[in-house]
Amino acid sequence: MLVNEERVTIQWGQCDPAGIVYFPRYFEILDNCTNALFERATGMTKIQMMKKWDIAGYPCVDNRCKFSKPCRFGDIVLVHSTITEFRRSSFDIHHRLLHLDGSLSVEWFDTRVWVGRDQADPEKLKSRALPPELVAAFQ
Amino acid sequence: MLVNEERVTIQWGQCDPAGIVYFPRYFEILDNCTNALFERATGMTKIQMMKKWDIAGYPCVDNRCKFSKPCRFGDIVLVHSTITEFRRSSFDIHHRLLHLDGSLSVEWFDTRVWVGRDQADPEKLKSRALPPELVAAFQ
Amino acid sequence: MLVNEERVTIQWGQCDPAGIVYFPRYFEILDNCTNALFERATGMTKIQMMKKWDIAGYPCVDNRCKFSKPCRFGDIVLVHSTITEFRRSSFDIHHRLLHLDGSLSVEWFDTRVWVGRDQADPEKLKSRALPPELVAAFQ
Amino acid sequence: MLVNEERVTIQWGQCDPAGIVYFPRYFEILDNCTNALFERATGMTKIQMMKKWDIAGYPCVDNRCKFSKPCRFGDIVLVHSTITEFRRSSFDIHHRLLHLDGSLSVEWFDTRVWVGRDQADPEKLKSRALPPELVAAFQ
Repeated sequence: MLVNEERVTIQWGQCDPAGIVYFPRYFEILDNCTNALFERATGMTKIQMMKKWDIAGYPCVDNRCKFSKPCRFGDIVLVHSTITEFRRSSFDIHHRLLHLDGSLSVEWFDTRVWVGRDQADPEKLKSRALPPELVAAFQ
Repeated sequence: MLVNEERVTIQWGQCDPAGIVYFPRYFEILDNCTNALFERATGMTKIQMMKKWDIAGYPCVDNRCKFSKPCRFGDIVLVHSTITEFRRSSFDIHHRLLHLDGSLSVEWFDTRVWVGRDQADPEKLKSRALPPELVAAFQ
Repeated sequence: MLVNEERVTIQWGQCDPAGIVYFPRYFEILDNCTNALFERATGMTKIQMMKKWDIAGYPCVDNRCKFSKPCRFGDIVLVHSTITEFRRSSFDIHHRLLHLDGSLSVEWFDTRVWVGRDQADPEKLKSRALPPELVAAFQ
Repeated sequence: MLVNEERVTIQWGQCDPAGIVYFPRYFEILDNCTNALFERATGMTKIQMMKKWDIAGYPCVDNRCKFSKPCRFGDIVLVHSTITEFRRSSFDIHHRLLHLDGSLSVEWFDTRVWVGRDQADPEKLKSRALPPELVAAFQ
């Protein structure tokens, strides 16, 4: 499976009064890395994928996250992201956010669903089968 | 003109490593207060207004903000918001974010435009005349 | 065990282009509810607790979150928060974010550690035993 | 004067239900660009500067921002940042956030103050004279 690596600099505004990253900011960083992984695999931005496959996105439905070693402002970190399983309409992503010395800071197990708008009620989101072409792009 | 007052508690995650509010968070607080002012005037939430008047929102186009006395985590502040001028399709809002001792922390002059989707290209936003009924609700 | 309820209005800026809450924003909401639970139990704000017990906070070290039914801009939700277990220096919090019709939107299992600054190196955070007086305040 | 250029991709979570960047996110982007400008000039990260010159930062005290042409998710934008004036302890920064076709999206005039901790009360921030060595680094 394809592994994407992103290099991220921790910004001042992502840190809290204890001087470490405020944990909801990690989810923003990791969500960006999910999109970057898809872009690397498909050569398309999320918005291009949304148009091509008529989806509303791939929201997170279940996730588990462990925070080991805090990041501080100015730290440069590497995020390794890979898909560990594809199912009919859902998939699991594994992210590891690493300090430059290789030590693990954050590990995130993230389950997503491929959704489109419900034709009967466009305000509702409904799961859809993953396009085989998309799944193939990650091999 | 109607003045709305909101009472806001400064949260841990809104503060930076210097222990004071990271300034972009003030804009989130003040934008929420803009919506609260409209809700107080019209009795409608922003989403109800968007449906009733078929608009896409009232984005900020120009603003000036002065930061005088920092807020810290745990501070309770009051935000006074009022519209200072209505024009054909735009309007000015004045916000004052005050410490409980009455001292001024943030003052924001915010110009907004009332916009709808362009019928020729729904991705584009176009200014629209403010509904007289809306303007009257602030008197 | 004490259960705290917070009433939260979903704000415009917390929602994404799909019109639903961008999931990292739930963690901000739920983290605020953690602080509100502690404030209800102790009668102290987080900053007062930090001073009284000489701690640097109670960061999240492990958490699991399930997203069931999306929230949209303008929704009013209730968050029920309670501590399910206290250990020597860590504890588990369970949050349920509910729509007003009682349906579950987000469920969060959150493990925190009570930490102070390491005296040898104030940049480092070290776990500390939970004060019995604090634990008693939740009964 | 030195001009720094940053290339930024607009992320999904920075956009609101109207599909455009939620304006407080621009301030996060532009604040990061301020730090990047300083890093380019001095060769130091903000945290290295804070240690070297014993400051608590350079908070924004006054700013004006015009929003011309909205950015959407997936847009790549360029931010040009330069200091337009240095005074004793404050300075003005001018940022232009541009679409790739050269059209202006956001223009920000930002006044900052160079501050340290007050020795009598470390919770208070006090302006300090800008180090001549710092000012020279931007020429």
